[in-house]
Amino acid sequence: MTEKTALVVSAHSADFVWRAGGAIALHAARGWKMTVVCLSYGERGESAKLWRQPGMTLDRVKVEREKEARAAAEALGVADIQFWDLGDYPIDLTQDAFYRLVDLYRAIHPAFVLTHSKEDIYNHDHPAVTDFAQHARITAQAHGHNPHQKVLGAPPVFLFEPHQPEQCNWKPDVLLDITPVWEKKRAAIECMAGQEHLWEYYTRVALQRGAQAARNSDKKITYGEGYQAVFPHVVESLA
Amino acid sequence: MTEKTALVVSAHSADFVWRAGGAIALHAARGWKMTVVCLSYGERGESAKLWRQPGMTLDRVKVEREKEARAAAEALGVADIQFWDLGDYPIDLTQDAFYRLVDLYRAIHPAFVLTHSKEDIYNHDHPAVTDFAQHARITAQAHGHNPHQKVLGAPPVFLFEPHQPEQCNWKPDVLLDITPVWEKKRAAIECMAGQEHLWEYYTRVALQRGAQAARNSDKKITYGEGYQAVFPHVVESLA
Amino acid sequence: MTEKTALVVSAHSADFVWRAGGAIALHAARGWKMTVVCLSYGERGESAKLWRQPGMTLDRVKVEREKEARAAAEALGVADIQFWDLGDYPIDLTQDAFYRLVDLYRAIHPAFVLTHSKEDIYNHDHPAVTDFAQHARITAQAHGHNPHQKVLGAPPVFLFEPHQPEQCNWKPDVLLDITPVWEKKRAAIECMAGQEHLWEYYTRVALQRGAQAARNSDKKITYGEGYQAVFPHVVESLA
Amino acid sequence: MTEKTALVVSAHSADFVWRAGGAIALHAARGWKMTVVCLSYGERGESAKLWRQPGMTLDRVKVEREKEARAAAEALGVADIQFWDLGDYPIDLTQDAFYRLVDLYRAIHPAFVLTHSKEDIYNHDHPAVTDFAQHARITAQAHGHNPHQKVLGAPPVFLFEPHQPEQCNWKPDVLLDITPVWEKKRAAIECMAGQEHLWEYYTRVALQRGAQAARNSDKKITYGEGYQAVFPHVVESLA
Amino acid sequence: MTEKTALVVSAHSADFVWRAGGAIALHAARGWKMTVVCLSYGERGESAKLWRQPGMTLDRVKVEREKEARAAAEALGVADIQFWDLGDYPIDLTQDAFYRLVDLYRAIHPAFVLTHSKEDIYNHDHPAVTDFAQHARITAQAHGHNPHQKVLGAPPVFLFEPHQPEQCNWKPDVLLDITPVWEKKRAAIECMAGQEHLWEYYTRVALQRGAQAARNSDKKITYGEGYQAVFPHVVESLA
Amino acid sequence: MTEKTALVVSAHSADFVWRAGGAIALHAARGWKMTVVCLSYGERGESAKLWRQPGMTLDRVKVEREKEARAAAEALGVADIQFWDLGDYPIDLTQDAFYRLVDLYRAIHPAFVLTHSKEDIYNHDHPAVTDFAQHARITAQAHGHNPHQKVLGAPPVFLFEPHQPEQCNWKPDVLLDITPVWEKKRAAIECMAGQEHLWEYYTRVALQRGAQAARNSDKKITYGEGYQAVFPHVVESLA
Repeated sequence: MTEKTALVVSAHSADFVWRAGGAIALHAARGWKMTVVCLSYGERGESAKLWRQPGMTLDRVKVEREKEARAAAEALGVADIQFWDLGDYPIDLTQDAFYRLVDLYRAIHPAFVLTHSKEDIYNHDHPAVTDFAQHARITAQAHGHNPHQKVLGAPPVFLFEPHQPEQCNWKPDVLLDITPVWEKKRAAIECMAGQEHLWEYYTRVALQRGAQAARNSDKKITYGEGYQAVFPHVVESLA
Repeated sequence: MTEKTALVVSAHSADFVWRAGGAIALHAARGWKMTVVCLSYGERGESAKLWRQPGMTLDRVKVEREKEARAAAEALGVADIQFWDLGDYPIDLTQDAFYRLVDLYRAIHPAFVLTHSKEDIYNHDHPAVTDFAQHARITAQAHGHNPHQKVLGAPPVFLFEPHQPEQCNWKPDVLLDITPVWEKKRAAIECMAGQEHLWEYYTRVALQRGAQAARNSDKKITYGEGYQAVFPHVVESLA
Repeated sequence: MTEKTALVVSAHSADFVWRAGGAIALHAARGWKMTVVCLSYGERGESAKLWRQPGMTLDRVKVEREKEARAAAEALGVADIQFWDLGDYPIDLTQDAFYRLVDLYRAIHPAFVLTHSKEDIYNHDHPAVTDFAQHARITAQAHGHNPHQKVLGAPPVFLFEPHQPEQCNWKPDVLLDITPVWEKKRAAIECMAGQEHLWEYYTRVALQRGAQAARNSDKKITYGEGYQAVFPHVVESLA
Repeated sequence: MTEKTALVVSAHSADFVWRAGGAIALHAARGWKMTVVCLSYGERGESAKLWRQPGMTLDRVKVEREKEARAAAEALGVADIQFWDLGDYPIDLTQDAFYRLVDLYRAIHPAFVLTHSKEDIYNHDHPAVTDFAQHARITAQAHGHNPHQKVLGAPPVFLFEPHQPEQCNWKPDVLLDITPVWEKKRAAIECMAGQEHLWEYYTRVALQRGAQAARNSDKKITYGEGYQAVFPHVVESLA
Repeated sequence: MTEKTALVVSAHSADFVWRAGGAIALHAARGWKMTVVCLSYGERGESAKLWRQPGMTLDRVKVEREKEARAAAEALGVADIQFWDLGDYPIDLTQDAFYRLVDLYRAIHPAFVLTHSKEDIYNHDHPAVTDFAQHARITAQAHGHNPHQKVLGAPPVFLFEPHQPEQCNWKPDVLLDITPVWEKKRAAIECMAGQEHLWEYYTRVALQRGAQAARNSDKKITYGEGYQAVFPHVVESLA
Repeated sequence: MTEKTALVVSAHSADFVWRAGGAIALHAARGWKMTVVCLSYGERGESAKLWRQPGMTLDRVKVEREKEARAAAEALGVADIQFWDLGDYPIDLTQDAFYRLVDLYRAIHPAFVLTHSKEDIYNHDHPAVTDFAQHARITAQAHGHNPHQKVLGAPPVFLFEPHQPEQCNWKPDVLLDITPVWEKKRAAIECMAGQEHLWEYYTRVALQRGAQAARNSDKKITYGEGYQAVFPHVVESLA
């Protein structure tokens, strides 16, 4: 039987934790091979606490960030985490990185893709990354790109929640019940020592999305994650 | 085991055929009890061909329209079709009809609801009906309404396709594969003798939605129906 | 040869002047029979100056408003102006008025319809009137309404400019060159003695729309009126 | 010196607490006279817990709801709370109630108005109430309505946060720091014994809006309330 | 007399056929000189069928694609078709190509421009091309660019229909009657041997747009093409 | 006491005058240090009149444009005006310019930022500049960028009015009363000898925005400027 895979394209090395940790843990627990690409360490724009330490350098920040992200990935059951070190604020989405991502799509044939929202007035890298990830997905579908390879199909893309959702015109049309794996997500969150101020913030996000998921479904759900689908859902039943 | 039910709220007596015939036939074929409410016969606004017959009267139009709709319902496997005869162009959505619909929600506890788009610049009754159907659904959820009854849960609502989708700002975020029941839908369509000019139009709609569903899923799909979800999808998996 | 007709549905008795005076004068000058329906005198909400006169009564306000509107209509070349006296703030759009408007559509078969914007946060009557006018138009299209009459075709509907366009989410996608009839529109504007504070305001609107029309067309245009089309333009050429 | 006043138009008797309790307490603490109108008790749709008690009646629910709301109003420092008992699910916004609200605007001349969001797919009464409140405000501005009275000016209207903000297309463009009065809002929340399941939910909302307010301002803010302005802000400075 | 010209900027060498073939044939038949620029052959992303042939190479794909496109252009009566070979998936919109397009605008002074939709979640090249085409148009209007040349005026730009219109937030506000030239468009479509699976798809699109055009105009129209105007229509009459 | 500063990022050397002259003069008059960056002279795309002079060269256009802009800046009380000469139509927003702007944010720590609208179908440089200015602002907030410097806080960003506001989907949610400094703005406008055709156009804009500001506030306001806020307003009071 074929292995089930999914791909998470994370701008900075903590995004996959706050925004998609539940989805990752949930599918990993069911035997999925989850691949996470951290395009940047977020070493300039998302490491304020580390920079407050005297004598801090860019390299030491990166080392710390990678350590945190690897620990979180392990807590979530990530099968493969990659750090592409493309810089941040601004991120440098090179042509090489583009084709590397195309190759990755072709290599793992993910059943779905998770990445950033289309807009983010607080963060210029996030929309750039979602465009990049979706663009590479389309190129991986092209029969004329490395014609000897099997082309990518049409995996759905889900955009995860930005920090201030309404300001980014992001609207969750999918609510994922992550109650069964909440402990793992919280453990992963607590690996992010450099951003402790966000632990409770994203725990509350999970509780709000959980309460909303319950209200929209009559199910008992405590923790949730919201996603915005890029493509229409193709279904065989409406129930 | 509880019976599975769904509710279709159709402004005029042909709408459920063009717009939701596939979903009805698909679920009926799987043993669902499908209830269709035709609030009006569409006797004034959607019966041009009948009115061209000499000596036509409102009552005769209604009789013809009901006959056609019953035949179509049978072709689709509808369990219960109701004609509320509320008039059309404009439809008269009375308070009595409102509470009758609330009672119906409480009586059958549908697992999902199908009704009209939120906007329709060509048809004033359609948006009024979707508002009416959603409003009744909310009232059926109220614990203080007939407190001795079991309240309605949170069945999802899907808005079916209007005649000119872009002009109505309707966007399909759910594409339903209706290939297995296409013959039934086409048979139901052919029951609508008074609107023969629409047979091919809605056959083409089904083919376009089918082609789009295939493209969005890598599946072999020939016929489709598009829906716009009102509420977020609550899911336990993203695949 | 058939007479060319168009219909303007104006909430208050001055709206047709500020918002559609140019279109009216332009077509009237070309021999069109322009019909203007003033559903209300605007006697409560748009007659502040009159109400500042001591001893003013509702009836006297109405008399003054009608006098002004008739003079303006004459300046513009209106063929038929009707005052339906439905009250304002709030307007009372009765069922009788509804069918009267349906009858009017059937009587004159307008080639196009001008009415209010879909939203107006400053005025509750305007959106109610545009809904009313469009609803009546649809009913006039119904073959089962007074089946002995010739049904209405599909005259385009253009929404004229509200007082604060951006706040009403109104966007002009049609710019009409009214330079040839500007003097008539200005003369009509000056008939509105009770709202002198708006004379220059709407003169500037005409100049801005004129400058924008020029910029969008390479033509020499000084005065313009903006409209938002409800329906797609059906054309035989793109030039 | 003139008394400063503001008006809160609440559909159900608890809405003003969850959604505007901070704004009310904040301005009350500064000497403002805050008037709250509860158009309905929410006795049918928002009192599930009470209805679970055996032998409950509509009248007893109303009594309980009023008791809770009065206690909450006291905790917030509300100067005047009114219960108009118009029913709920659906609410019956009568013409009498309309003119009563117009009179209230004229009587207190509020400096600002707080009411519900324009859309709410979970609640049909909320959008009806915001339309009602804004419509009455416009009528109170009309010089011809009770011409002997002083007309209302142009108080800004702010729409408070619905239960599931993104699903209601509600976007907060004003974030109010309610940290100084948080204890009062929490005390008022705890008066709502019948909806205990919402206490923590709305506490988390306050914390999220507070964190977002801090991030948008460089200020130390812990608790916030979000509002969406209906009208543009008129200012004398951009700082 | 000056020759009438129009410009079609097509990302891939088949786009002008599916999306604008009717407009091209219609105007060509009336003596217009129609220029089509194919920025790419679509050799990687839109040539699946060719790539399934054993031993296929990029150059052979391009040769085939050009052959097909030239035949289609001839069927439509295109006066000048140009292949710029900029690559695809992704397309490389170089600075040289940019100024070449500016020069072309200046050389032919098109009366209107046809190009791609602003969004396309299935195709990254299409939105890039529409931005490129509109940008070049603006630069061609600049008096300081090659100051000795006659600057471009303000030709309207119409965006043609993408493959899945609603998913691209594309809304047709212009419906062009292409019934008189349908045979030519169908002939051109049949030149695209490599994409036979699209022949019927786009024939159905033409029939749907035709039916919609008829419904919006009371005219007898069988085949249509939809366009979305970028700029407001400047008109001298509303009829 | 710290000096108060604000930053205006203007694509072309006249934009700050038409679009933000009132805000600049108003704050300058209150002792603010206003910095204006003109990224380009607008020498190619916005200097038609100069190019009509025989023998004109790019350098001479730039000299003229700088002269005009300096005179206008003086009239407005600008403390520092900078010309970065990045070219126009198209503008070349280099990486060097990007970091220069980041440095400027860090150097002056503006309390607010004024720049272009997000969309402009008539001008490709304007949206590019607003993206550039907001991106640089975010990078200036990053702790890892030049870690020895004090990071930028969260200054609000206001988007000024484009030439055809509705076509650019720009909506003013802030109306600034510039009546007290109107004479200065008009004087600055009259410095722009090369664009005399715009003097009255933007004077009318100021009068319309003034009238609208008055209507939204009950204040006596004659001249106004409209802005669209990018971020939510963080406030301590709703009055």
